Amino acid sequence: MIGVLLERGKPSVRQNLTDPRPGREEALVGLRLAGICGTDRAMLGGYAEFSGIMGHEFVGEVLDAPGSPGWVGQRVVGRITISCGTCRHCRQGRPGHCESRSVLGIRAKDGVFAERFCLPAVNLVAVPAQVSDEAAVFAEPLAAALRIVEQVRVSESDRVLVIGAGCLGQLAARVLAQSGCRLQVVARHEQQRLRLEAWGIPWIPENKGGAKAYDLVVEATGSPAGFDAALQMVRPEGTVVLKSTLPEKISVDLSAVVVNEVAVVGSRCGPLDRAVQWLAAGKIDPTDLIEARFPLEEASAAFARAAAPGAFKVLLSG
Amino acid sequence: MIGVLLERGKPSVRQNLTDPRPGREEALVGLRLAGICGTDRAMLGGYAEFSGIMGHEFVGEVLDAPGSPGWVGQRVVGRITISCGTCRHCRQGRPGHCESRSVLGIRAKDGVFAERFCLPAVNLVAVPAQVSDEAAVFAEPLAAALRIVEQVRVSESDRVLVIGAGCLGQLAARVLAQSGCRLQVVARHEQQRLRLEAWGIPWIPENKGGAKAYDLVVEATGSPAGFDAALQMVRPEGTVVLKSTLPEKISVDLSAVVVNEVAVVGSRCGPLDRAVQWLAAGKIDPTDLIEARFPLEEASAAFARAAAPGAFKVLLSG
Repeated sequence: MIGVLLERGKPSVRQNLTDPRPGREEALVGLRLAGICGTDRAMLGGYAEFSGIMGHEFVGEVLDAPGSPGWVGQRVVGRITISCGTCRHCRQGRPGHCESRSVLGIRAKDGVFAERFCLPAVNLVAVPAQVSDEAAVFAEPLAAALRIVEQVRVSESDRVLVIGAGCLGQLAARVLAQSGCRLQVVARHEQQRLRLEAWGIPWIPENKGGAKAYDLVVEATGSPAGFDAALQMVRPEGTVVLKSTLPEKISVDLSAVVVNEVAVVGSRCGPLDRAVQWLAAGKIDPTDLIEARFPLEEASAAFARAAAPGAFKVLLSG
Repeated sequence: MIGVLLERGKPSVRQNLTDPRPGREEALVGLRLAGICGTDRAMLGGYAEFSGIMGHEFVGEVLDAPGSPGWVGQRVVGRITISCGTCRHCRQGRPGHCESRSVLGIRAKDGVFAERFCLPAVNLVAVPAQVSDEAAVFAEPLAAALRIVEQVRVSESDRVLVIGAGCLGQLAARVLAQSGCRLQVVARHEQQRLRLEAWGIPWIPENKGGAKAYDLVVEATGSPAGFDAALQMVRPEGTVVLKSTLPEKISVDLSAVVVNEVAVVGSRCGPLDRAVQWLAAGKIDPTDLIEARFPLEEASAAFARAAAPGAFKVLLSG
């Protein structure tokens, strides 16, 4: 089968990869659409030292599920973290932080940039008929956006700033807008601003907006400069939600965190089932964030397109 | 009068400083005891670019108070932040974060390492008769320790680690111990360990303790290495309270904050009135943390003593 293999930070399209065979608790999934995200691009720079088939955002169809054949034929998305169920973090109800976890296409588990792939059946979430493939493929990043409001209470009176208006920033803004808060988004590129305007969300250019003026700042730039910018904009005793996973250490002014008594909250994966519910209910339509679509064979062109300044979601089709 | 003046990061004892004169809303306070803290020592390295009389931890006696003469003759401690009352942060109930604040001995306001000094009468907190000068001089750092439990809810089932067993770490540990939580303190020096043992608080050496095992980690090392150590010890979705104000930027692995979804909470000054209440009620006796006592004239010897590894609180007497 065809797939995109990462070896020593270099991706390559392979034509004759061995077909994966599902274990008893697994499902074999045929790819319909996959999304390229910032983490994938960071891995091309060596983040996570992963070798294997890339990719973790997907919508697919279950082809086989030895232990739970009822799944066969259904359209699904899937939680990307595969947890052991027995370690202290799993037992304490935080399976996403399992000590011996593998993560689809990121850590010790082949991912979804392939015609077929396996993951545990317990990770699957069914996609209702009214949700298109093009919407369902956003379930994982939408869940990451929903994670913000799981971690931080947002009220109507809150001034909220999202820094970064790429895919995740746009989804975070659409989620936060539904709380009725006083929202602004720092958007650098014309196409980012147009999408925000289409959703009625106010944008501001970089280096504008009120210093120390926001109750909550969501950092979704994917860039090392995002943290300092967030610290400049958040009010004393306010909250910064960090979304960017940077491949290296960065130099930061921690005394600003202490002196201004800021709370900095790291935020990663979110509730995939809730994301699917939001898509099914039509609360968010992410499909205007599709930048381009390539077959798996043209993955290198797809990565190049995804790396363009201001690019939204680039999809790979199975 | 005698006082300790800081100019371009260099302290010097001056014998004939001009006596301060209180404004209408101020009190003139005669020093009884002052404490040297980590911030003072950081300022010797240039932190905050302050020039003027140093010092902010004190207990003194009110000598004059033109606008509120009832204070005269009383023993007092004082809030160190002088706020405007009219800026947005003051109006929103965060006077400690006033935009045009001055801070006793730290920012734009002469401090307390002098025979006499002024501060606004509204900043004063009376010291009850049963609290000795030697205990009262700890009110400010004790308030900083109490700030932790204002910001973070600590329950009996929580595993809590304090990293750093200097003065602030010891006070934080004593405060946290009263919550009944499962507490450990990383202590490097013998005298630090002995104080913890005297209070029945378990200590561990550096680089021991369970990685990712603590619900709450309080970083009170005053050192750039403290943050990384805290990130290694806190559990996923746990909380790190940062107490150290470092004079420069440091290199940190922010992706560990994101991937482990840690909340990092900056923590500065706390409730001075509550600290005095704790001292008055005998909930904490800090006087075993007095390392040495020098007259103002011997401030340079006092600074040297305060800089010794594992030193506790060095006092200056008026």
